[in-house]
Amino acid sequence: MHNDTIVALATPSGSGAIAVIRLSGQEAISIASKCFKSVSGKDLNQQATHTIHLGHIVEDKRTIDEVLVSVFKDPNSYTGENVVEISCHGSSYIQQEIIQLFLRQGCRMATAGEFTLRAFLNGKLDLSQAEAVADLISSDNEASHQIAMQQMRGGFSSEIAKLREELLNFASLIELELDFAEEDVEFADRTQFKDLVERITFVLKRLIDSFAVGNVIKNGIPVAIVGEPNVGKSTLLNALLNEDRAIVSEIAGTTRDTIEDEISIGGVGFRFIDTAGIRDTKDVVESIGIKKTFEKIEQAQVVMFLVGSPQLAVGSNAVESFKIEIEKIKNKFPQKQLLVILNKIDQITDSELANLRTDLESHSSNVIPISAKTGFGVEQLTNQLLNLINTGALRNNETIVTNSRHYDALLKAFEEIQKVQYGLDTDLSGDLLAIDIRQALYHFGEITGEITNDDLLGNIFANFCIGK
Amino acid sequence: MHNDTIVALATPSGSGAIAVIRLSGQEAISIASKCFKSVSGKDLNQQATHTIHLGHIVEDKRTIDEVLVSVFKDPNSYTGENVVEISCHGSSYIQQEIIQLFLRQGCRMATAGEFTLRAFLNGKLDLSQAEAVADLISSDNEASHQIAMQQMRGGFSSEIAKLREELLNFASLIELELDFAEEDVEFADRTQFKDLVERITFVLKRLIDSFAVGNVIKNGIPVAIVGEPNVGKSTLLNALLNEDRAIVSEIAGTTRDTIEDEISIGGVGFRFIDTAGIRDTKDVVESIGIKKTFEKIEQAQVVMFLVGSPQLAVGSNAVESFKIEIEKIKNKFPQKQLLVILNKIDQITDSELANLRTDLESHSSNVIPISAKTGFGVEQLTNQLLNLINTGALRNNETIVTNSRHYDALLKAFEEIQKVQYGLDTDLSGDLLAIDIRQALYHFGEITGEITNDDLLGNIFANFCIGK
Repeated sequence: MHNDTIVALATPSGSGAIAVIRLSGQEAISIASKCFKSVSGKDLNQQATHTIHLGHIVEDKRTIDEVLVSVFKDPNSYTGENVVEISCHGSSYIQQEIIQLFLRQGCRMATAGEFTLRAFLNGKLDLSQAEAVADLISSDNEASHQIAMQQMRGGFSSEIAKLREELLNFASLIELELDFAEEDVEFADRTQFKDLVERITFVLKRLIDSFAVGNVIKNGIPVAIVGEPNVGKSTLLNALLNEDRAIVSEIAGTTRDTIEDEISIGGVGFRFIDTAGIRDTKDVVESIGIKKTFEKIEQAQVVMFLVGSPQLAVGSNAVESFKIEIEKIKNKFPQKQLLVILNKIDQITDSELANLRTDLESHSSNVIPISAKTGFGVEQLTNQLLNLINTGALRNNETIVTNSRHYDALLKAFEEIQKVQYGLDTDLSGDLLAIDIRQALYHFGEITGEITNDDLLGNIFANFCIGK
Repeated sequence: MHNDTIVALATPSGSGAIAVIRLSGQEAISIASKCFKSVSGKDLNQQATHTIHLGHIVEDKRTIDEVLVSVFKDPNSYTGENVVEISCHGSSYIQQEIIQLFLRQGCRMATAGEFTLRAFLNGKLDLSQAEAVADLISSDNEASHQIAMQQMRGGFSSEIAKLREELLNFASLIELELDFAEEDVEFADRTQFKDLVERITFVLKRLIDSFAVGNVIKNGIPVAIVGEPNVGKSTLLNALLNEDRAIVSEIAGTTRDTIEDEISIGGVGFRFIDTAGIRDTKDVVESIGIKKTFEKIEQAQVVMFLVGSPQLAVGSNAVESFKIEIEKIKNKFPQKQLLVILNKIDQITDSELANLRTDLESHSSNVIPISAKTGFGVEQLTNQLLNLINTGALRNNETIVTNSRHYDALLKAFEEIQKVQYGLDTDLSGDLLAIDIRQALYHFGEITGEITNDDLLGNIFANFCIGK
């Protein structure tokens, strides 16, 4: 698998000004040189790494395109192999013709993620860094981008790798003791070892805990909007989006499609889940609706209860039934963060608002009056949303785990380390201790890819796009 | 306009493995160097042209992405200015962040086609070559690609430029004669000049004539399919497509959407226009349908009359009314190429087919029996379609005009050259002759861009994508 030369389109499909086609493999440069006619008569095989050459892609006497060819030489390339990147005109027809030409010249179509897989197999990246590449490409807000970037630069795996090395060192010493079992020597200093196990326990705990934050950041923080139609939900989402719109609109078609349900606020992705109201009712059909609302709230981390102030201001009946609804949610979901949002305050008087607020604040500490239409109070709401989320770790540049595979491995490693701890506390014999340590090492190795198998690699890289 | 540095995404928007962001302008390298931290500590400003550098795009202490930066130095770049291309991870978020960063650093968002406009203004391309760049990007079959490629390489404009130079030379000599009018000298050899005018006339005629072919190749050759539902139209289109399917399917989503109406056969694009049948009827609603069918046939260059053989074989009535339909089309559109296609011949006997054929061939010389389902006869149909189109010029690598702006300029130049010819034949005075020559020169110059104005340039480059 490792000896052939692979080819794929590396840029998005469709038409643009340019497209990039990527080749990797020991033959990449020599194959490219057969199809390339430099304008200055240069031979690609003779060129230095990291240089660019203008010329034409030709087959027999037919010119397919005028291109720029970039040459990267083993091991100074993304994959660690010889790599050629061809920057051609961005027509689908040309992309297709060039790829077909290289297939005829003996290249093979790359599978999803195969360039990054080769980078991993050639030791250019460890496994968690390789996984971060896919996360980076799919990141669509500052928080998820920052985490992926940190992981790709090795922040996470280098910490694990360092602890693994220390642990491996002790494992070797303890196994050495076994060879001298009759002489009752102790190569591995137990005090130092206990200290290491404590440090590992501390790091593992921190990383495992970070997954809760990491997971919501990666997938967007789920916010249930409880609110009947026409309380101003869409207007509110637009108002929340407003501050970022200037950036979003610079590149057409990037996020417009999903504005309705997922938006980025202060660099963190929020996923809004639309629900109906939960008014008290004896009607069977409405009861089903309420059940669904509760199911949706179940998935959320924050509940935003949106209501039109004029409706509440009309009389005490409306306010009372609204309070009952608030209490219902609070009782059913004591763990969820609740925001009560009084919308359309531009349509009521100041004294009406003051009364409403006083009244409602005895039921919820987070009552936020806004006018989605005029923008009043939206900034306060934004700040409140961000405050509710524990993004302290993010701001402090701490390592955050976002990948459930890593999370699983960390949990297993933690379990084994606890066994080691217990073994140390109970003066377990060296041979049994060594088994637990080996297990912990195994799970550490799973994260960085020192321990791996074809199935695991297959699963990981299948999620990549072709060309990466 | 020429002094600022422009930036744009050069690859298609959306997610892919990588994206390329392009900067052009005298400050491109110095601006990029302020946002780039090379892994080996290199300063971008000190690097040679056509070299690639690995590093990070950073703003203050925040790392936006790990990237490859390509440096091209004035004048050895696409635009003829300093150019930097940044190959980043292909997330929309990252593309957006990097472009925003450069905008903050003083770049300006490029307008559509502005990179190519600068290439033209800096003399890297003439105007017809620049126009060919847009054609090349939008080409979706071999024929249109080949024409655009040829035009981009200057085949067309160099011919015009050469004739223009010769003509300019004579113009100068004739104008010189005017200065010595009283001495009755003749600097411009009239025999040689007549010879030149004849050559120009010949070339202009050829180029003008080629536009008919060029236009259909560029826009696809329109083929009206006359045929009722269920005569096997979709099956036929699929069968025609079959030979190219292997190529098309290599890159997902390239042409599948439009298979129904536009397919490439033998490297030439055919645009199929679906029509209903034209059976004789007194029904008002159906009459409207027939009128529409005729309107669609009007737009076509080829009429493919598709009919199910079994329906014809059932009795002489069906055949007779079919013959009437054929005659109707032949009478109404004597200039159109007509193909009568007997589909589903696998469902009738050989003798039935032989009878049908003999019967129909007295009405049309192009009766083609096929079975779209089994593929029988499809190759013959393909050849017949290609034969109908005069692609001889294409095969002989002759220059073909596809651009209607060029066509207009050529027509005007031809008109002026005819006046010159007439002037020469009637011994017109030098001063009047010179005016006609200057007019012809003007129209030649319009094609290559030696004569131009802002409106014209604005119109041409507005059709480009941003980033090219």
